[in-house]
Amino acid sequence: MPTTTPALILDSAGAPFRQGTIERRDLRPDDVRIDIAFAGICHSDIHTVREEWGPCQFPIVTGHEIAGVVSEVGSEVVNYQVGDRVGVGCLVDSCGECEYCVKGNENFCTKGAVGTYASVNYDGEIAQGGYSQQIVVSERFVVRIPQAIPLDVAAPLLCAGITTYTPLKRWGAGPGRSVAVVGMGGLGHMGVKIAAAMGADVTVISQTMSKEADGRAYGAIDYRATENPQVFEELRHAFDLVLCTVSADLPLDAYLGMVKPFGSLVLVGLPEKPQTVEAFSLILGDKVLTGSNIGGIPGTQEMLDFCAEHQIGATVERIGADEVGAAYDKVVASKVRYRFVIDSATIKP
Amino acid sequence: MPTTTPALILDSAGAPFRQGTIERRDLRPDDVRIDIAFAGICHSDIHTVREEWGPCQFPIVTGHEIAGVVSEVGSEVVNYQVGDRVGVGCLVDSCGECEYCVKGNENFCTKGAVGTYASVNYDGEIAQGGYSQQIVVSERFVVRIPQAIPLDVAAPLLCAGITTYTPLKRWGAGPGRSVAVVGMGGLGHMGVKIAAAMGADVTVISQTMSKEADGRAYGAIDYRATENPQVFEELRHAFDLVLCTVSADLPLDAYLGMVKPFGSLVLVGLPEKPQTVEAFSLILGDKVLTGSNIGGIPGTQEMLDFCAEHQIGATVERIGADEVGAAYDKVVASKVRYRFVIDSATIKP
Repeated sequence: MPTTTPALILDSAGAPFRQGTIERRDLRPDDVRIDIAFAGICHSDIHTVREEWGPCQFPIVTGHEIAGVVSEVGSEVVNYQVGDRVGVGCLVDSCGECEYCVKGNENFCTKGAVGTYASVNYDGEIAQGGYSQQIVVSERFVVRIPQAIPLDVAAPLLCAGITTYTPLKRWGAGPGRSVAVVGMGGLGHMGVKIAAAMGADVTVISQTMSKEADGRAYGAIDYRATENPQVFEELRHAFDLVLCTVSADLPLDAYLGMVKPFGSLVLVGLPEKPQTVEAFSLILGDKVLTGSNIGGIPGTQEMLDFCAEHQIGATVERIGADEVGAAYDKVVASKVRYRFVIDSATIKP
Repeated sequence: MPTTTPALILDSAGAPFRQGTIERRDLRPDDVRIDIAFAGICHSDIHTVREEWGPCQFPIVTGHEIAGVVSEVGSEVVNYQVGDRVGVGCLVDSCGECEYCVKGNENFCTKGAVGTYASVNYDGEIAQGGYSQQIVVSERFVVRIPQAIPLDVAAPLLCAGITTYTPLKRWGAGPGRSVAVVGMGGLGHMGVKIAAAMGADVTVISQTMSKEADGRAYGAIDYRATENPQVFEELRHAFDLVLCTVSADLPLDAYLGMVKPFGSLVLVGLPEKPQTVEAFSLILGDKVLTGSNIGGIPGTQEMLDFCAEHQIGATVERIGADEVGAAYDKVVASKVRYRFVIDSATIKP
């Protein structure tokens, strides 16, 4: 018999959050039940429920930055036991057999990975996310949160952390490498912390200088604002890697101009419209324009272990269930420093 | 006293080729004098003299696919002697000291590499290219043409060969990897030969099927035409690497759709206008859009040695000096299979 659990529910695109209950399935042999402690608010949650990325099936419970403690395990679970501190990110299932799954790149499963919410499970049910007090997930999609990371600051690592860690690692952030992080929001502040921990020389490129003190505290050695248009000329060929965390339309050629020969411009923000780029901007310098979409499960565990080793967590503002609606507006207005996390205990059934 | 040498000269953007003489400098200690046997006609030559890439300083002698034999060496030349079979490509000088030069990436010299023609030498003179019977070049920009490669089919390797070899190597063409080569012209036919020799499974994507027999003879295992618009759907996620050798405006999102997750779309052709691309096309699959601009001198030697080992040369049509004007029109009309090379002996002073 499915279990009911308190959750923050949206019944339509314009509706306010409603505190109620949803059902979680009975444990399958490989399932883990997690008592959720905190769930981060990701901008994706907002894009989804505001139907900015297409139609959304309501009612919906969002949230894919989930941190909590195992409260029950299925009969065949091997890696977790009751009491373990664990996390769940953007994915809750994949085929497990395709060339991407077998290499730990479940995010590119050829059958189509199942998202933590707004996605149809392989059994036909709509997956419901982490703004809730419990979730049931196959242990294959559970990661361990090291003791060194408190659960509230761990939650955003499950999306914002892995989304920035993956391209920083792939494109060679490290000692002797110059990395620019464009944007100082939920993703950007994690990008700065992780790139600095990797040993790179990090510059933040923001619209204004308002978050400079934070950027430097997180490890940046320089901080520039694009409200000064000369910044593009001043930083010409300055970076091995530019990690762009904003979703706005960007002058890609101008940002590619900041990239050194053989360097990379990585997009993790999703602008709604097509961008334009000159072939010359790529060819003169053998430069890379690429994107990066979260990461796989082994990479997510690696990221958490890296963050624990380097004492990194997200910078969070804890909020209660009745503050989530207002928090969405603040996220859109860039008025969060730097991630809201919902204290799940405050959700009333 | 400078030496005069017969050359094919253009006096203005619209003028016909004139056979006359130009001067080559006295040998500096590190210079090599080369008796040119063949010079390939690259589409870049045509773009330049037709001022499609900006103003051009006339009179000009183009040509940066040069193969010949050393006829004289400067007092401090160490790597070459009279009689050696050698080539010169797109570059004739660079600073030699910057971070790019010291790693053999002279093409991205921070001082600015000197092109083989239409470029100002560090001494202030305009460099003149290979449609000529002699050239004088520092040995640092001379490469050795192995005995296994005849000089006529070697000449185009100095641009078309290195331009395709560099990205095929960087982006991992090899056994078990699927590579598409878009376009079957001067660059494309070399891309097919080199990728096949690297062991990749090569598919040609052309506008029509007219060159299918050649493509398969050069090593392709499949050949598709974009005049069938279903090709983009049929080849969805089919390739680790798509090497685009055409200069036309391309639907980048459609080509990125052919790329597997973690794969790459490499541009070596230069369309005149900005292209558009959706961030989604890059992010969903962590795909790379990049460009590649010739290569450095060590890479060019490596490419020639690779081609010798694999018995690869360009497929050429030899022409005389009085056929070059008509040849330009044929190149623009894609009526060359696959590279014209000028027999330098036919140039009259």
